Amino acid sequence: MPKISLKGSKMPSSPIRKLVPYAEAAKKRGTKVIHLNIGQPDIKTPRIALDAIKNSAIEVLAYSRTEGSEEYRVKIAKYYAKHHLKVEAEEIIVTTGGSEALSFAMGSILDEGDEVIIPEPFYANYNGFATANGVNVVPIVSKLEDNFSLPPISEFEKLISPKTKAILICNPGNPTGYLYNKEEIEQLAELVKKHNLFLIADEVYREFAYDGKQHYSLLGISGLEDYAIVIDSVSKRYSMCGARIGCLVSKNKEVIQTALKFAQARLSPPTLAQIASEAALDTPQSYFDDVIEEYVSRRDLLISELQKVEGVKVAQPSGAFYCVVELPVKDSDDFAQWLLEKFNVHNETVMVAPAAGFYASEGLGNNQIRIAYVLEKEQLKKAVHILSEGLKQYHNS
Amino acid sequence: MPKISLKGSKMPSSPIRKLVPYAEAAKKRGTKVIHLNIGQPDIKTPRIALDAIKNSAIEVLAYSRTEGSEEYRVKIAKYYAKHHLKVEAEEIIVTTGGSEALSFAMGSILDEGDEVIIPEPFYANYNGFATANGVNVVPIVSKLEDNFSLPPISEFEKLISPKTKAILICNPGNPTGYLYNKEEIEQLAELVKKHNLFLIADEVYREFAYDGKQHYSLLGISGLEDYAIVIDSVSKRYSMCGARIGCLVSKNKEVIQTALKFAQARLSPPTLAQIASEAALDTPQSYFDDVIEEYVSRRDLLISELQKVEGVKVAQPSGAFYCVVELPVKDSDDFAQWLLEKFNVHNETVMVAPAAGFYASEGLGNNQIRIAYVLEKEQLKKAVHILSEGLKQYHNS
Ligand SMILES: Cc1ncc(COP(=O)(O)O)c(C=O)c1O
Ligand SMILES: Cc1ncc(COP(=O)(O)O)c(C=O)c1O
Repeated sequence: MPKISLKGSKMPSSPIRKLVPYAEAAKKRGTKVIHLNIGQPDIKTPRIALDAIKNSAIEVLAYSRTEGSEEYRVKIAKYYAKHHLKVEAEEIIVTTGGSEALSFAMGSILDEGDEVIIPEPFYANYNGFATANGVNVVPIVSKLEDNFSLPPISEFEKLISPKTKAILICNPGNPTGYLYNKEEIEQLAELVKKHNLFLIADEVYREFAYDGKQHYSLLGISGLEDYAIVIDSVSKRYSMCGARIGCLVSKNKEVIQTALKFAQARLSPPTLAQIASEAALDTPQSYFDDVIEEYVSRRDLLISELQKVEGVKVAQPSGAFYCVVELPVKDSDDFAQWLLEKFNVHNETVMVAPAAGFYASEGLGNNQIRIAYVLEKEQLKKAVHILSEGLKQYHNS
Repeated sequence: MPKISLKGSKMPSSPIRKLVPYAEAAKKRGTKVIHLNIGQPDIKTPRIALDAIKNSAIEVLAYSRTEGSEEYRVKIAKYYAKHHLKVEAEEIIVTTGGSEALSFAMGSILDEGDEVIIPEPFYANYNGFATANGVNVVPIVSKLEDNFSLPPISEFEKLISPKTKAILICNPGNPTGYLYNKEEIEQLAELVKKHNLFLIADEVYREFAYDGKQHYSLLGISGLEDYAIVIDSVSKRYSMCGARIGCLVSKNKEVIQTALKFAQARLSPPTLAQIASEAALDTPQSYFDDVIEEYVSRRDLLISELQKVEGVKVAQPSGAFYCVVELPVKDSDDFAQWLLEKFNVHNETVMVAPAAGFYASEGLGNNQIRIAYVLEKEQLKKAVHILSEGLKQYHNS
């Protein structure tokens, strides 16, 4: 039998993949599983987006342009303008989700053996895209005690090597929920200019900024035009993850030209989903106001409930819809499995994402989990109750 | 300014990309351009597929399963069964077009510096996926005089090195239109088993087999289970290229498990397009009968018209909807540009795909073009007329 590639065998699995069979077994036993592990919003997709597809008169479902339909890109540029970010349509490549934009960005700027520095904990699939591109992730640790704010620039500088080509941040962060402030973004900007590195910002949660705080996009930092690559996506913004539409934005022409060659190879992003995404841009502000209000009240409830649980520490997130929680356990992977396999409260249990998968440094995050608050408050409250009961019994078992 | 990657700068551009500005300029001058260069069928997408989306009651456009929705995979397996190919749903990963399936296949079995042997001329984007994966394409030449049939196995054996990990064929071929016969497929099967290589067959044109000839899928060859990877797609079959749905099929569990890790990183294939693709599987046979009849009559017209043109040689394709044509010119790239820039007949001209981009060997294909017969017969006839007039004047210019 021929051998699969070394790269293939090194590809990481999703951090919760191991737990899936236990969740399925629990469901088969009749136990209801409340999913705190999934970043799939429960919020309804704007009607206007779904209707655009229903009303489309397409008879031949043809490829779109490789870089995305012209009309859609023009409208994305207007969206950024509304956010006081000056972007031209030619600086945008529409991609199959933010995922593909991440992949194109890495391919365009990193070679086999090159290094990208990423504050950890980070979105686990960065590992997958890095491995697929033969690239090494160099983690820099951010801490729960600091709400996962930016590590000191001096720590970054210690890690920069001749192989370092880029720094990648997620703002606001998955799994941290941390929203970088202006100073942090400006410090990073100075750093990459000084060391001649690319700065990639994954801004797919841009709209989810709470407590009156502002989101600082790389696209708003003057002098960073040649260095900045922004990853964006409609997935979470309009609760349309299944559309698979995102984009890569850069004012560096060479980056765009190169990413376009990766895009050409795969022909085009999905056509119908672009129609829906274009229409979604007309979603009224009231939709977002409602959504943000809902997430904020979920977050507040979640955090305050968690803080009541003995031995639990939780960061204060001000963006996205995740938080990282430290539990009084040694191995959150084992605890998560135990919750699914051995535990229930009135025949209900919870599934959480063990946080070790969000760290690249061996041994970190073993006592942490990530919770996504994409459930209704009543469910969240019940979930924390189950978690806290679980912690009591787990300790005694 | 930071540097883009070496890989990025090596990424090939699409072979017709250079011609696009000339086509746009011609259109601006008011010259109509007949596109013989595009593999985008003009045939209507089955109503049943488009209606499935319009009728869907989705309120949250959520991610689907990473490997594609369960119902869809089960139905794909049934589709193969109808074609006398025994495939289980677990042996299928739904991908974002055949393009992504190609990319996953290469990533799963090839490492940086590994080699894949591909008969040339071949689908140009194989170069893009290979470069993106750091893999080297080793071409083996097939000839117009032989209708681009399989090169002798002894020629393959000369090219096999310790770095060779796979052979990739396209059946029926883009750009050749060649449909491999049973003997050829069996010879390849013996070859890969002898040398312990993977055999990838890009079967996205499977349904387009003419003249009563049968398509031989790798999935029908017993003993090849561990070696075979099949690439498939709804793009051409149902004229729904814009859906971006394809699949990777293999009975080798390790290949599926590995490809699934690449799939996990990008979360899921498009959700709405899967609904359409699932419905498309219920397209009545009469749709295909009509489509095939149409393509055959287009091909017959195209070939017979081309054969009338002095100095032109054309292979006899019996599958897909492309043919490679040898012209009495030195540089078909220059000729193609000249047609757009300097030539018209009653204010109409044609755009063709220069064939050099379909060869990996330097210097091959320079006097060839690829024509896609996805236009109505009247247009095709006119296009060949323009081409033949062009050849006369080009020679004199
Ligand atoms: C931080 C981050 N980036 C990128 C993505 C990719 O999302 P998509 O490909 O759906 O745009 C996700 C999805 O969860 C994410 O959390
Ligand atoms: C031979 C071949 N393989 C694969 C593809 C990729 O098609 P898609 O990604 O639309 O399935 C094409 C498209 O033209 C093709 O011609």
